[in-house]
Amino acid sequence: MVVTLRANAPQEKIDHLIRWLEEKGLDVREYHGKQQCVLGLIGNTAGVDIDMLGSLDIVESVSDMADPFKAANRIIHPDDTVVRAGHTPVGGGKFALIAGPCSVETEEQIIDVALRVKAAGANFLRGGAFKPRTSPYDFQGLGEEGLKLLLKAKKITGLPIVTELMELRSLDLFEHVDVIQVGARNTQNYDLLRELGKVKNAILLKRGLAGTIKELLMSAEYIMASGNENVILCERGIRTYESDYTRNTLDLSAVPVLKGLTHLPIVVDPSHATGRADLVSSMALAATAAGADGIMIEVHNNPAKALCDGPQSLTPEQFEDVAKRISRVRKVIQD
Amino acid sequence: MVVTLRANAPQEKIDHLIRWLEEKGLDVREYHGKQQCVLGLIGNTAGVDIDMLGSLDIVESVSDMADPFKAANRIIHPDDTVVRAGHTPVGGGKFALIAGPCSVETEEQIIDVALRVKAAGANFLRGGAFKPRTSPYDFQGLGEEGLKLLLKAKKITGLPIVTELMELRSLDLFEHVDVIQVGARNTQNYDLLRELGKVKNAILLKRGLAGTIKELLMSAEYIMASGNENVILCERGIRTYESDYTRNTLDLSAVPVLKGLTHLPIVVDPSHATGRADLVSSMALAATAAGADGIMIEVHNNPAKALCDGPQSLTPEQFEDVAKRISRVRKVIQD
Amino acid sequence: MVVTLRANAPQEKIDHLIRWLEEKGLDVREYHGKQQCVLGLIGNTAGVDIDMLGSLDIVESVSDMADPFKAANRIIHPDDTVVRAGHTPVGGGKFALIAGPCSVETEEQIIDVALRVKAAGANFLRGGAFKPRTSPYDFQGLGEEGLKLLLKAKKITGLPIVTELMELRSLDLFEHVDVIQVGARNTQNYDLLRELGKVKNAILLKRGLAGTIKELLMSAEYIMASGNENVILCERGIRTYESDYTRNTLDLSAVPVLKGLTHLPIVVDPSHATGRADLVSSMALAATAAGADGIMIEVHNNPAKALCDGPQSLTPEQFEDVAKRISRVRKVIQD
Amino acid sequence: MVVTLRANAPQEKIDHLIRWLEEKGLDVREYHGKQQCVLGLIGNTAGVDIDMLGSLDIVESVSDMADPFKAANRIIHPDDTVVRAGHTPVGGGKFALIAGPCSVETEEQIIDVALRVKAAGANFLRGGAFKPRTSPYDFQGLGEEGLKLLLKAKKITGLPIVTELMELRSLDLFEHVDVIQVGARNTQNYDLLRELGKVKNAILLKRGLAGTIKELLMSAEYIMASGNENVILCERGIRTYESDYTRNTLDLSAVPVLKGLTHLPIVVDPSHATGRADLVSSMALAATAAGADGIMIEVHNNPAKALCDGPQSLTPEQFEDVAKRISRVRKVIQD
Repeated sequence: MVVTLRANAPQEKIDHLIRWLEEKGLDVREYHGKQQCVLGLIGNTAGVDIDMLGSLDIVESVSDMADPFKAANRIIHPDDTVVRAGHTPVGGGKFALIAGPCSVETEEQIIDVALRVKAAGANFLRGGAFKPRTSPYDFQGLGEEGLKLLLKAKKITGLPIVTELMELRSLDLFEHVDVIQVGARNTQNYDLLRELGKVKNAILLKRGLAGTIKELLMSAEYIMASGNENVILCERGIRTYESDYTRNTLDLSAVPVLKGLTHLPIVVDPSHATGRADLVSSMALAATAAGADGIMIEVHNNPAKALCDGPQSLTPEQFEDVAKRISRVRKVIQD
Repeated sequence: MVVTLRANAPQEKIDHLIRWLEEKGLDVREYHGKQQCVLGLIGNTAGVDIDMLGSLDIVESVSDMADPFKAANRIIHPDDTVVRAGHTPVGGGKFALIAGPCSVETEEQIIDVALRVKAAGANFLRGGAFKPRTSPYDFQGLGEEGLKLLLKAKKITGLPIVTELMELRSLDLFEHVDVIQVGARNTQNYDLLRELGKVKNAILLKRGLAGTIKELLMSAEYIMASGNENVILCERGIRTYESDYTRNTLDLSAVPVLKGLTHLPIVVDPSHATGRADLVSSMALAATAAGADGIMIEVHNNPAKALCDGPQSLTPEQFEDVAKRISRVRKVIQD
Repeated sequence: MVVTLRANAPQEKIDHLIRWLEEKGLDVREYHGKQQCVLGLIGNTAGVDIDMLGSLDIVESVSDMADPFKAANRIIHPDDTVVRAGHTPVGGGKFALIAGPCSVETEEQIIDVALRVKAAGANFLRGGAFKPRTSPYDFQGLGEEGLKLLLKAKKITGLPIVTELMELRSLDLFEHVDVIQVGARNTQNYDLLRELGKVKNAILLKRGLAGTIKELLMSAEYIMASGNENVILCERGIRTYESDYTRNTLDLSAVPVLKGLTHLPIVVDPSHATGRADLVSSMALAATAAGADGIMIEVHNNPAKALCDGPQSLTPEQFEDVAKRISRVRKVIQD
Repeated sequence: MVVTLRANAPQEKIDHLIRWLEEKGLDVREYHGKQQCVLGLIGNTAGVDIDMLGSLDIVESVSDMADPFKAANRIIHPDDTVVRAGHTPVGGGKFALIAGPCSVETEEQIIDVALRVKAAGANFLRGGAFKPRTSPYDFQGLGEEGLKLLLKAKKITGLPIVTELMELRSLDLFEHVDVIQVGARNTQNYDLLRELGKVKNAILLKRGLAGTIKELLMSAEYIMASGNENVILCERGIRTYESDYTRNTLDLSAVPVLKGLTHLPIVVDPSHATGRADLVSSMALAATAAGADGIMIEVHNNPAKALCDGPQSLTPEQFEDVAKRISRVRKVIQD
């Protein structure tokens, strides 16, 4: 349920109303926009008398919220959320250009890539330490050692880092990770989501392998309902029948659809979506033109020798070119 | 099989070689690029001695063509094809901005829309006269009368027209139609494709409802194998499990994938793909940024009263805004 | 709209009511079940006064028909339709066991296969004369000559034949074909469907490559709305992301779903669905257990040398085994 | 790599060979079939000299194992695995009929259902204590209390129980659970899978929401590679574009495909696949006819009041009927 308050409603009366609603067992989200205050009521609203609420002098209107996602809903938070990822803002016009290798391999590799993507314009460094692999016999990432190398690269370059958490037992190691990534295979690992609702890091939540837009929002809702509103959504391609030429089908219409439904920022990952370095540039530009709040691109200093996902990695030189073009498209889109 | 000739090969010797190959029952496609001539051999090449061919003095190299699409393959036609649609070129840097209503309804409607989309920058008028409808009880279009109104609008505005052909028996009526559209339900109607290979009109071939990229190219191949190389491909969204928020999933990675595989131009239809007017602008810009050779947009002078697909139609004012933005993105992309 | 009449309504009054409804421009389907008569009103029922209709003494109830398919709807035809395919009934407990090669190749081949599948229990012979092939360069079937061979096999064995029509221009050749097949690529070729509504042959309508159940029914509706109610539906697998091990995903839940929605018989084609001979037997038995009204199986006397789809063809010996097992499952299911 | 030994190879020499291979860092799976012994070598086999191996007198042949799943592969374990689930065998001709409510709600409910499904022929009781729900605001199951009620029902009826584990922290509570279920959203939660490789319970592993057959086998491989070979696979419907009439599309061809690829037993869940009680019976029979090693059906003593998934639950009476029919189909199939 959404209660829109009158423009001049005194805070004292608003506080009084909120307390009264909370006493009825509701979770009340107070949102102060530029002109009005909106209250989002989450929980069982069956005991609330809508007519009575609507007749209060500070209330302008009361409406139902049909969507199952509440905290993530733009209705109760009309402006864009600006997520704080380390010291870097994402959303509401602030663009995230995230780059780095699929896997952290060596200190030399991650620091070299970090310096080069920073020079090219990236404002986040990505890199996998714990890797979800389809086969138990494949390289599973450097683990804790990889995390340490990432943090070293962060110290040297000043870039906030994005890296994937696969299981709660390693959560303590992620304290200084600016953005914790939830991978596509864990998008509906509700236990993980709930615990990530209790940390202070920003969360990058990937859409499931064949996840619906609604499911992505409901997974964000799990995190937000547990207390962490620093959630960045990530479109990374969906599974369709078309697999001769691309690994997944990048669903760019998800960008404007999500912008309409939620106030959370949306980032696009063209590298995993297509699985092909030669398609990354066009898809990065297309995603930017579609209105994405950020782009995440795999960059490796030697793609041919990458331990993982080499065929989809750009070289630092290629990334520099794409970064420039993204920046130009952004300028045109914003005008 | 692809035979690349030496840069200085004399035409006389080339002609001689072609005749010799044709006598073996092969269809030989001769392509003169900026520097070299390439011969594409289509048909049963089992009887051709590759070593002998490769040893000829005018031949630089001979290679196999693994893809099942031959005439459409970029290997035998490295430069972009520029399709002549009426007097308007499409492809190779020439952009098609196609706009108009889903269905032709009245003379007043189609002429009003035509004038307004032309003023806004469209260089093609689209409009349905024969409409493929899922239900036999729904409005099936004005038919022949609709075609006449379209031709009248063409006369008045000078815009070449794009309209759908549903069955061969009405083919004669399409003589003055600049671009004959093959709808998504007919993409694999091979009999129709074969006959369209015998006409002089340009063909806009839509990807099937759940068609693969390869199937789209094979359908183009049916038209080309019958003699008509004026084929424009059209991405219009594919069927996936995600249908809560969009009608289809627009597959924009198909644009760079197709640009790599074929020399034919590719147009994107964001209106049918999304089914939602509010998503058309972002998706049109994204498609342009992805490298499309054209965009097809539904425009109606009164979307709320449209006989068909109103919810996905832009008003002429909205179209004008999108057209401007497309033009700006194109400039940035081409630099 | 559906009008259920009282059990004792005199035919004279029923006829009077029907005439009155037809004068309002409605197409009235009269269905006499075991106990009651039901009238299905197809067309624009806006001008019909429901209250008035309901108050007539011969009318028991009037209800709306929400589904877009009308003539195919079980609501207006509660009992199973028994389609007459040649002299052989299909549906309502009458099972169609359809077998034969993908393509007719030679007289010897088709007659040999026909005799052997008949001996094994088949009551229909299938075989392709006109073949829809993805590539214009592949074998397209024997055409008219293939049809003649099929008719010869029919004469010799007495088996009614099932074969695919790809285009209207060859319709005259199909006069003596008992069941005309509409292939998956033509399921929404509305022009073809409309014309097949005017012939007397039974029609086997395949579900589209990625067709929905509703679309299949709407395509049947096109045929029925034009006058031919002898329609058999065919589930042949749908396109999904799973293509490593099967060509399509056989959707057997479509069988009970369709049995609930429509009175038309449903046949299942496990050969095209899976593309693998070793899966045909299990899937044929599963389809039978799911309640299918028939099974269509590809059988070739020499699968290894088949000109088309050899890997999915059974030998006559394998077919004989499957036919026996189908028959046993049917017995158990019917009890 | 697969090493097939000669029929008369003495165990002493086999042991010697195994030790030698293990010293090279390989995990050696020794499988004694009815006639021969097969060794499956898992791990990096680059250092193994195939020619030398093949020349040993106890070795008949050495072949490569192309599939990425090794321990689950039928090649190294040609006979069906019979999983011990509590005291009840599953696979290799032993059928699992698993029934019970979606969620455990009250002691009365679960014991009543347990007694009734047992009387009707079920040999396993299922019931959810921890429920994965798309919304954080929905009923999440009774948790530990639900588990206790299930164990009570097990004590009273003697039926082994099947219930879902959602997170490792509750693993200790599952000690006496006969079959731990991994739900579709956790199929690729590799951390969970790895830990389940260390317990003694049998594992029922559901196919992912849109999981491929290969992914299902790779997830089984994670469990097996960690030491637990008591894995039962479960087909529960896949996500496709068809969602008007069924929740998921039950992929029954997965049954014979899996039977060919792996020695593990395969159970089918028609309740979750279709989401409709009226389709459960046909799909259960079809799955049985397709060769499934078990069927899992939701049964509730009052479906209309179920806290979860009521529309797909059978009444105990309906279950009794289905159980009888399943048994009859099994008899016919086995003959």
